[in-house]
Amino acid sequence: MVMKASIISIGTEILIGQIINTNASWMGAELNTIGVEVREVISVSDEKNSMLQALEDAENRSEIILVTGGLGPTKDDFTKDVIAEFIDVPLYFDESTYERITNVFKKKNFTLSEQHKEQCWMPEGVQLLENRMGTAPGMLFKTPQGKLLISMPGVPFEMKYIFKHSVIPLLSKMSKIRIYHQTIMTVGTAESIIANMIEDIEENLPKGLSIAYLPSFGKVRVRVSGQGDKGKEVENNVDLLVNTIKERLGDMVYGMNELSLAEAVQRLAIKKNIQLGTAESCTGGFVAHTITKIPGCSQYFKGSVIAYNNDIKSTILGVEEIVLENKGAVSEEVAKQMVKGLLDKFNVDIALSITGIAGPGGGSELKPIGTVFMACGNKKKMVFFEHHFGKNRMINIQYSTVFALNMVRKFLLEV
Amino acid sequence: MVMKASIISIGTEILIGQIINTNASWMGAELNTIGVEVREVISVSDEKNSMLQALEDAENRSEIILVTGGLGPTKDDFTKDVIAEFIDVPLYFDESTYERITNVFKKKNFTLSEQHKEQCWMPEGVQLLENRMGTAPGMLFKTPQGKLLISMPGVPFEMKYIFKHSVIPLLSKMSKIRIYHQTIMTVGTAESIIANMIEDIEENLPKGLSIAYLPSFGKVRVRVSGQGDKGKEVENNVDLLVNTIKERLGDMVYGMNELSLAEAVQRLAIKKNIQLGTAESCTGGFVAHTITKIPGCSQYFKGSVIAYNNDIKSTILGVEEIVLENKGAVSEEVAKQMVKGLLDKFNVDIALSITGIAGPGGGSELKPIGTVFMACGNKKKMVFFEHHFGKNRMINIQYSTVFALNMVRKFLLEV
Repeated sequence: MVMKASIISIGTEILIGQIINTNASWMGAELNTIGVEVREVISVSDEKNSMLQALEDAENRSEIILVTGGLGPTKDDFTKDVIAEFIDVPLYFDESTYERITNVFKKKNFTLSEQHKEQCWMPEGVQLLENRMGTAPGMLFKTPQGKLLISMPGVPFEMKYIFKHSVIPLLSKMSKIRIYHQTIMTVGTAESIIANMIEDIEENLPKGLSIAYLPSFGKVRVRVSGQGDKGKEVENNVDLLVNTIKERLGDMVYGMNELSLAEAVQRLAIKKNIQLGTAESCTGGFVAHTITKIPGCSQYFKGSVIAYNNDIKSTILGVEEIVLENKGAVSEEVAKQMVKGLLDKFNVDIALSITGIAGPGGGSELKPIGTVFMACGNKKKMVFFEHHFGKNRMINIQYSTVFALNMVRKFLLEV
Repeated sequence: MVMKASIISIGTEILIGQIINTNASWMGAELNTIGVEVREVISVSDEKNSMLQALEDAENRSEIILVTGGLGPTKDDFTKDVIAEFIDVPLYFDESTYERITNVFKKKNFTLSEQHKEQCWMPEGVQLLENRMGTAPGMLFKTPQGKLLISMPGVPFEMKYIFKHSVIPLLSKMSKIRIYHQTIMTVGTAESIIANMIEDIEENLPKGLSIAYLPSFGKVRVRVSGQGDKGKEVENNVDLLVNTIKERLGDMVYGMNELSLAEAVQRLAIKKNIQLGTAESCTGGFVAHTITKIPGCSQYFKGSVIAYNNDIKSTILGVEEIVLENKGAVSEEVAKQMVKGLLDKFNVDIALSITGIAGPGGGSELKPIGTVFMACGNKKKMVFFEHHFGKNRMINIQYSTVFALNMVRKFLLEV
């Protein structure tokens, strides 16, 4: 049996969008790897009744209740009072916590405020979990129904410390299940087409295995999950299925497990000892940025010309003015001349160019917004693509970047 | 009375931490500005009973239920089936949706798969909300208790489109409270310093007004909020306070209400009829991207050289090799020569250059990771800055970009 957990995140700042609930997703990922299934994440405000309701719901649904937030020294922090009411115990003054906090403050030459003294009151029956990153310790309880209730501070690095040092070891010991995920990273093909390609596989999945599709901007992550209790067998079943799917999908698969497309390109280029240069018009630097986000890119990426103005296309990249005039800046000929110019002036092995109309202005009947030409080549060979994306500027930039990087990837596969 | 909303986020990928629930926080922030209070955010998996339970809980607690996720074309997407069961209506085949999806696919030269046909089945009684960003429309229902239930795709840009164009207008009309926010956009000064500068103002706030600080990467948004039910009076009080604060903060204020720094630069440059060129090393195209994200940038931005490799700095920008050798690529001299090279070769009025060490490699004792030099100048004058940011590559890129754009802004203010 999989143990189920409910995560309760406390704090009005989450509900009004002032902070993003990264704590819950971080805990979810950690719990997932030890076979604890997060049943739900409930975010509620610093308000007693909402908190009590969330605790009650969670207790009815899960064996493990993980609460973050509301343990600070200020007035809006009263998670432990609510927990004391929920499990129906009084608070006591914990001398060991007082001593620890006093020492921390002495070291920092701060005086202990009355507010911090508040942090030493604990619900009876608590088991304290060490927090070396802050003043409020984690707290472990048994609820009236015998469920595990763990309360931690909302400050991410404090929560993570307690989680890694106390919560994970405790829950790992309790867990009897093996859960295992592998994610196949694909690019250039729509979710529905991929689903069609592996429909027969999905319809005959072995027990305990499942497939999920996570699309974003020209990429689709295909996640294969397995669940069981026989240790190694789950991993083998998932890996086997992953291999079958990878074979079926062919070269639209560029990597595994959250590998970025830029990193896939980087690995290939470095392996093949190739230097790359790019010339961007409509993407305006987003391709270069996507490439240079990855540490180590200087090993293969020499640089880029953002030729936003036609002047730059001709003076820096040597695109002929007559071609710009006759064919227009957004044309196959210009895309190809940009590649040639780069190969000459940047002294690179492979060059990529992109020219298009990102919008919202600049479209025409012949070349509507979303028209993007891209070319990729070396001294011997050049490939070219014409794309038609949509009307949204930023989405066009993102799609163009993904398809351009994929073009480089495919070119690299063949040289 | 404030209207209350429950947000239900559907998707196992949220619970296992594969994606972070940014949708909920984005909606929370938007709802906050129109006087709708988010009571709770519930994230559950793609599992029928959990979804039904969440809907039931939400219906009991809030007037508005916002659901995201589970509307895609694949088998793990069945939010609308669950909703149909929840409000107890059958599904019907919606011809208008079928026609729209067919057209979208025709334009892209894709064939419509059986899975996409699935997306045309709708619970009876639905009111469709237009989604120009994808195939699945938003859906609006009345629940058995008469509550408002809105279901949207989980893909952020699709959800945002529907939310902005349909949900916000609808809820604004229903809301009876007047909430009015104005946000002062500042750059280059820390939150604590700003708070100090306006401490006396904050201590004497008129009733119903509040100030919040939202810092991010060198920028601080100072949000002034007013709440009341007297219409115009709230607005006047907020506007008055905003003017007082703006005067106090001086030229660190670059605009209002989510204006991006790049757009502030663009407005200034176009007003002064100035052409800009940039040369980036460590920021790798992020400055150019930040500039070219803004529609209309071609009116002042000519382009950029991403001189990642020293070769490019010398061949394209004319930085002297002896200077690169003696002073290093990350140096005041190189930053200044990059500006000079751009002014010559790009035929621009103002040029900006950035050279630094983004990390994680490349640091030294003399020039640790996070050291960034930037210069900005025209034919008559040049300004220069040396920055020391932290150890994180992406954070260094972001800070450098903000400070560089601010440098251009201040330069533009003075020419």
